[in-house]
Amino acid sequence: MRAVTVSDGEIVVAQRADPKPGAGEVLVKVRAAGLNGADMMQRRGLYPAPPGSPADIPGLELAGEVAELGERSERFALGARVMGIVGGGGQAELAVVHERQLMPVPERLSWEQAGGLPEVFTTAHDALFTQAQLRSGERLLVHGAAGGVGLAAIQLARAAGASVVATVRNRALRAEVASIGAEAIAVDGFERNGPFDVILELVGAPNFDANMKALAERGRICVIGVGAGGKAELNLLALMGKRARIHGSTLRSRALEEKALAARLLEREVLPLIASGQVSVHVSASYPLQEAGAAYERFAAGGKLGKIVLTM
Amino acid sequence: MRAVTVSDGEIVVAQRADPKPGAGEVLVKVRAAGLNGADMMQRRGLYPAPPGSPADIPGLELAGEVAELGERSERFALGARVMGIVGGGGQAELAVVHERQLMPVPERLSWEQAGGLPEVFTTAHDALFTQAQLRSGERLLVHGAAGGVGLAAIQLARAAGASVVATVRNRALRAEVASIGAEAIAVDGFERNGPFDVILELVGAPNFDANMKALAERGRICVIGVGAGGKAELNLLALMGKRARIHGSTLRSRALEEKALAARLLEREVLPLIASGQVSVHVSASYPLQEAGAAYERFAAGGKLGKIVLTM
Repeated sequence: MRAVTVSDGEIVVAQRADPKPGAGEVLVKVRAAGLNGADMMQRRGLYPAPPGSPADIPGLELAGEVAELGERSERFALGARVMGIVGGGGQAELAVVHERQLMPVPERLSWEQAGGLPEVFTTAHDALFTQAQLRSGERLLVHGAAGGVGLAAIQLARAAGASVVATVRNRALRAEVASIGAEAIAVDGFERNGPFDVILELVGAPNFDANMKALAERGRICVIGVGAGGKAELNLLALMGKRARIHGSTLRSRALEEKALAARLLEREVLPLIASGQVSVHVSASYPLQEAGAAYERFAAGGKLGKIVLTM
Repeated sequence: MRAVTVSDGEIVVAQRADPKPGAGEVLVKVRAAGLNGADMMQRRGLYPAPPGSPADIPGLELAGEVAELGERSERFALGARVMGIVGGGGQAELAVVHERQLMPVPERLSWEQAGGLPEVFTTAHDALFTQAQLRSGERLLVHGAAGGVGLAAIQLARAAGASVVATVRNRALRAEVASIGAEAIAVDGFERNGPFDVILELVGAPNFDANMKALAERGRICVIGVGAGGKAELNLLALMGKRARIHGSTLRSRALEEKALAARLLEREVLPLIASGQVSVHVSASYPLQEAGAAYERFAAGGKLGKIVLTM
C-alpha cells in the first residue's frame, strides 16, 4: 500500500506492507483521512505515535470501506462504510482498526466529510459535554472557531440549546462562522462579551488571563489546543472566587476502551444530528494522497474554514 | 449581646443588638465558633461579608443551642444542640441561622469540637468528593495538612478507602499528622512521592508547577487556599497530556440553597463517621470570647494542629 510517512521532518508518500487485521479488528480500505494538529506535531517529532500504532505513518482518523474481517469481528459487513479514530496510521490506503472504534457513515456524508468527522466531533463533543457538561441555556465561548473542532463545537452547542460566541482571527472567515450559528468576533477584547459558562480554548496561553475574567461563576474552561503558547498565568484567587474548573484533554493517548466509549457516545448523540442535516461537516479542501505534502503545508498555514482531508 | 467586631483592622469585642429570627430561621445561643482563614482576610478588609450577613461581625461557623424559633421553623426543638455554616456573624453570643443550614451535633462532640467542625469538614468533603470525586484506592496529596481542613481531609479520605500523603511545613507536627493516617512529609521534593490522583492545595501558587508533575493521568487538583501566593504558572500541555482537571472553590459566596445542600451531604456522609468515632475534630486551642484578639493572633501565627475556637 501507499502511505504518508514522516522522514526527517518531511512528508513522503512511500510504499509500505499491507497490514493484517487481528482478532476483533477490521481492515479498512481508506477513502479519506483528515489532517489534525497532532499530525503537524508528529511531523516535527513532538508527538510520537502511541504503542500499537505505526510509528511513522500519521493520521488520527479515517473513513473507508471494510475490506477484510479479523477473527470474531462482527459489527460490520464487508463493504460497509465506516469511520473512526485511530492512534495513528490513518493516512494510508489501508489501515487496521478495532471494530469497536468504528462508526457507520451516515448516507448523507461524502467520503471527504466522513474522513474529517471523527477526530473533531469526538474532541468537541467530549470537551463540551463529557468534560465541561455544557447545558441548554448556557453561553459558550469558542476560541479559534474557524478550524474543524471549532465548527463542530459551535454546531453541537447550538443543537444542545446553548448560545455561542466565537473568536475568529481571520476577519474574512467571520461571516461563515456566523452563518452556522455563532456570534463571530475578534479576539481582542472578547472578555467584554462575557460572562461565559464554558470556554473552549483551542488557541492556548495568550487568552488565559482574559478567559478567567470572562468566565461566569461556576464556569468551566476546556483546554484542547495550545498552538499559540503552553505556559499560562493562572489567577488562583479568581479560580476560587468563581468556583471555576479547568480541564485539559487530548484524545490520542486514551486507551482503546475509552476511544470505543467515545465512539458509542458519538453514534448516539451526534450521528443522528448529522443524519438529519442539523449538523454538518465542513471540508475546507481535499488533496489526493500523493499531494499529502501540499495538504500539510495548507494545514500549517492556518486561516482555513473547516477540515483539510486526504483522499485515496 | 457581645460580639467580635472588626474596627480599622483591629479585633474588638463590643456590644451589639440581639438579632431576631425571621421565617425559617432560628436564634442560636452560640457556645463555640471556629476561626478560619477568611476571618483573617476580613480583618484586613479583603473579604467583605456577603449580603444578609452582619457586615462587621466575623465568624463563618458556630455551634450552640436553639434559643428561639422563627415562624415556620420546624427542624429543631428549643434547646437542641446545633451547628452550621453562616455567611458571617458566627463569633457572637447570639446568631440567626436558617434552619436548613444547621445540623444536629453528635453527642460525642464537645462544644469546642462542634464549633470547629462545620467549615473545615464541609470544605474538605466538598473538595474531595463533590469536586475531585476521590474514590477508594486512589492516592491523595494534601498540602498544608496540619490545619483544620487538612486534618479533616486526611480522615475523610482514609475513611473512604484512599491513601494519603500530607506535606507539613512544621516538622514538630508531622508525627501527629501521621498518627491520623497520612504519610507526613516535608514539602520540598514532594513530587518524588507521586503520582497522585487528587491534590488538595491549601497553600497556593508555590507548589503549582510541582503539582502538575506529581499528578497522575486523569488527576484532579483542588485549590481551596492561596495563603502563600495566588498567581501560578500553569503548564497547559501537561494539563492536556494528563487529561487533568483543576478546581477552585470557596464556601462563603454560595447561595443559601447550596449551603443547605452541603449540610445535608455532611449529615449523611460525615456525621455518621463522627458519631462512631472513626473521624474526629481536632481543636488546637480555645479562647473565651473576650480574648478573641489573642485567638486571632494565634491563628495568624500558624503552626497549629487543628482548629482555633472561641467559646461563649
